[in-house]
Amino acid sequence: MLAAGGCIDAPRGTMYRQHFASNLPQQLMEKMIIGHLHPADQEKVDLQMEKLADETADPYENEPTRNAKLIVHGDTPMNAEVPRDVITQSYITPEDMFYIRHHHPVPLLSEKDAENFELEVDLRLINEGATKVTLDQIKSLPKVEVTTTLQCSGNRRSGFNDFRRTSGTPWDQGAISTAKWGGARLVDVLMLASKDADGDAKPTTSSSLLESLQCLQNTLSANPNLQHLRFESIDGMKASIDINKAFNPFGDVLVAYEMNGKPLPRDHGYPLRVIVPGYAAVRNVKWLSKLELADSQAVGAWQRGLNYKVLPPSVTDARSVNLDDMPGLGEVAVFSGVTSVELNESESLGELAEGTVDIKPGDKPLRVEISNIIFSLLKTIFVCDSRMMHVATILHIIRQAVDVKASGWAWAGGGRNIVRVDVTGDGGKGWCNASLTQGASQPYGRAWAWVFWECDKVPATVCEDGKSVVLSCKGVDMAFNSQPESSDGLWNVRGLANNSWYRLRHSVVHV
Amino acid sequence: MLAAGGCIDAPRGTMYRQHFASNLPQQLMEKMIIGHLHPADQEKVDLQMEKLADETADPYENEPTRNAKLIVHGDTPMNAEVPRDVITQSYITPEDMFYIRHHHPVPLLSEKDAENFELEVDLRLINEGATKVTLDQIKSLPKVEVTTTLQCSGNRRSGFNDFRRTSGTPWDQGAISTAKWGGARLVDVLMLASKDADGDAKPTTSSSLLESLQCLQNTLSANPNLQHLRFESIDGMKASIDINKAFNPFGDVLVAYEMNGKPLPRDHGYPLRVIVPGYAAVRNVKWLSKLELADSQAVGAWQRGLNYKVLPPSVTDARSVNLDDMPGLGEVAVFSGVTSVELNESESLGELAEGTVDIKPGDKPLRVEISNIIFSLLKTIFVCDSRMMHVATILHIIRQAVDVKASGWAWAGGGRNIVRVDVTGDGGKGWCNASLTQGASQPYGRAWAWVFWECDKVPATVCEDGKSVVLSCKGVDMAFNSQPESSDGLWNVRGLANNSWYRLRHSVVHV
Repeated sequence: MLAAGGCIDAPRGTMYRQHFASNLPQQLMEKMIIGHLHPADQEKVDLQMEKLADETADPYENEPTRNAKLIVHGDTPMNAEVPRDVITQSYITPEDMFYIRHHHPVPLLSEKDAENFELEVDLRLINEGATKVTLDQIKSLPKVEVTTTLQCSGNRRSGFNDFRRTSGTPWDQGAISTAKWGGARLVDVLMLASKDADGDAKPTTSSSLLESLQCLQNTLSANPNLQHLRFESIDGMKASIDINKAFNPFGDVLVAYEMNGKPLPRDHGYPLRVIVPGYAAVRNVKWLSKLELADSQAVGAWQRGLNYKVLPPSVTDARSVNLDDMPGLGEVAVFSGVTSVELNESESLGELAEGTVDIKPGDKPLRVEISNIIFSLLKTIFVCDSRMMHVATILHIIRQAVDVKASGWAWAGGGRNIVRVDVTGDGGKGWCNASLTQGASQPYGRAWAWVFWECDKVPATVCEDGKSVVLSCKGVDMAFNSQPESSDGLWNVRGLANNSWYRLRHSVVHV
Repeated sequence: MLAAGGCIDAPRGTMYRQHFASNLPQQLMEKMIIGHLHPADQEKVDLQMEKLADETADPYENEPTRNAKLIVHGDTPMNAEVPRDVITQSYITPEDMFYIRHHHPVPLLSEKDAENFELEVDLRLINEGATKVTLDQIKSLPKVEVTTTLQCSGNRRSGFNDFRRTSGTPWDQGAISTAKWGGARLVDVLMLASKDADGDAKPTTSSSLLESLQCLQNTLSANPNLQHLRFESIDGMKASIDINKAFNPFGDVLVAYEMNGKPLPRDHGYPLRVIVPGYAAVRNVKWLSKLELADSQAVGAWQRGLNYKVLPPSVTDARSVNLDDMPGLGEVAVFSGVTSVELNESESLGELAEGTVDIKPGDKPLRVEISNIIFSLLKTIFVCDSRMMHVATILHIIRQAVDVKASGWAWAGGGRNIVRVDVTGDGGKGWCNASLTQGASQPYGRAWAWVFWECDKVPATVCEDGKSVVLSCKGVDMAFNSQPESSDGLWNVRGLANNSWYRLRHSVVHV
């Protein structure tokens, strides 16, 4: 299907246009070169390819219409993030403002296709057979609703690029959104398939909790190979999750057919997608076509390949590592972002301008012209060396303080509640404890969605440009994992998992 | 029992001697003062208290004998950490080298007491009654062995104190150890109690996995109040864990009676302790006397009080916060440490000395005398300001590089596997990817014990003292949570959860 991990003997290169955005695919395939065509033959092949491409329908001609407010990084396939001022506009992201990150064209199912849609379920690993269940059967199971945040693993990749080039879409903070997903519990769908396989409806006794746990543990012991649950998508995409997430009674994995109370939109997986709360969005497979109990991870680039592997910062050439040694992304680390900053009305910025500072060591203000280089040098010493505090004292007077109101979001994977968001306007010398607002009261360990935060009065130091402040935030999850300060030690060639302190530069000059 | 959270009308002040190590208890009780005794009355009371104290046996007279190699921070109650060179000497810490962190004297059970020991189990919340189970009954259940690391929540507290004073034992990195615990599954003990309650042994049918999960989910839905499992200790200590950990089939919670294949030593919980893999050690209650299904957390200082609450860095006065708003410690963040550094033999340190530098800009070495202040200034600029790279270029030549061999440990709570340890010898400008050795192949999401790591050749920059290098490490867990660079943003008044990069200064001068 669409040659994703499959056959490539059609001119499908034009479908995977993301591969032309970087020289990485070429680099990776370099060592497979077995020779070059004679220029005359190459010309013939080129002509033939062009002709074929002309005759083949544009695989992107049936894409859905998208909200024009989304920031589009690329449209074949569509990769679009939510603008900063929209991210926290509502706790539940409207469907048409939900970020989009596709690998391929969006599958198009006719109404009839959707009506007759069947999900393959392969339980042969635990001797329960392989079967198909219909969309209607899935909809007849008890409906469960779970509100989860989904985030692209490359969210905030652009923050790495200042440090060293990465490969992939240069997302800012907007590849994250939240929806209320409705569907059947994954285990219920598996049970449904299991019933189908032997023809009998198995009785569901309401035995004691402790007895059930005992049964579960016994049955897991009896099937030691049962380690993974694999997913496949209509578009050929494959991924998997560990069985302890798939079967965890507190894991809330869904086979979803609704988003925010309506049928899934095409862009978000119509007719079925799997929702794996707290996991990287790539494991929440859209356009779900198959479930399979398995003894190993899904095959293919998205689970075992480079695409979703966070390599060490010391690796700049992806060809030098053994990818099997590195796990693919599953649970997500703690992340946060600043979406709004306002200068509090009572503050005025004064007259600080580049190259000019007001020094007020005592009662008499003294205006001093000072070159940029010296200013920068003094500032450096101020920030870095406590032994230079006599210089710092002067600088503390030079640099002007304002206070601002800020707000944003924070989220941690694995269901870990956000217990705190710290906000700073002076590069981390002092911190404010933000108020957690929406999303703050999710159940312990099952906090699948983000929290919103706000801070009314953050003391901020005007930057040496005399015009702006930089607001930073860091989230802390219930395990007291905290966001690292800098992205330097997090950098990786694929630009994944950049959860360093988010920094937003905001102008405080009234024009 | 021992007045822990109970009655204080005996001269027990002498038992809780840790309270004299800080003025925090006095501060916290200040606002409860209702008056002062007349000096004459005070004198009488003092005399009476002294007499009573003389007549009362020393509560610490029955403490076990400890290994003299442990670093003792205080012995009434005993708080002792593992010396650096011993921490990673063996993957399983020998029982007598396991760190000790007690709140009270160690309970002393006679042989007869131990033989007749009964654990209270209160299942009234799910209408299964309250009962007692004997030690023999627990030992007759299937024995399960789990290797877990335990860490005091204050481990590495001393790293905070350079920044700002904290309250508590100033642990370095040695309040961590690993053992193989043997015992019964917690759920099996609960089942045992449940059977006792109605007198019948309930049949354990080996039904299908999917069916069991369905039962479990049904039963949990039927008992929405079932949110916590509370523990009590013989010494009066109380703690609790969330039900999703207690009943998680992948959570591996044990009622343990063995440590490394032998009965629990008195210092580590004889005769029973609960093992809550991946959680702060304080939840792994020693000398377990009671289990209770509950609708709220355990009462008392250790669960709801200040002791195990990680306050925001902005809070310097613990009296100003509402503790109910902050969760107690449960799962633990990612931690690591360096335990050994060796200068590789092929390296020689050369002649760098304080105040003298070798500048080698081209072929001709040039020796320059340089004052400490200028050196420090240049270094500061080098580290902090990329615009000053022309200075940095000179400095890069000045500062001498060696390479070292280093090793250590890393651990993350919540069963999250350590997927990487990064090591740096130059303050984080460059990183080495350490090899993970013992503990590297634990099951996904159930990695309850630490990993050991080693790095054969870490490029390190000699510090400005001309004599030492600083080796830092940071661990990364499977959710790609990473250790923050600095402890500034992590600081909290109780000094908990300091998982900033571990830094070890090591002399590289051959004497």
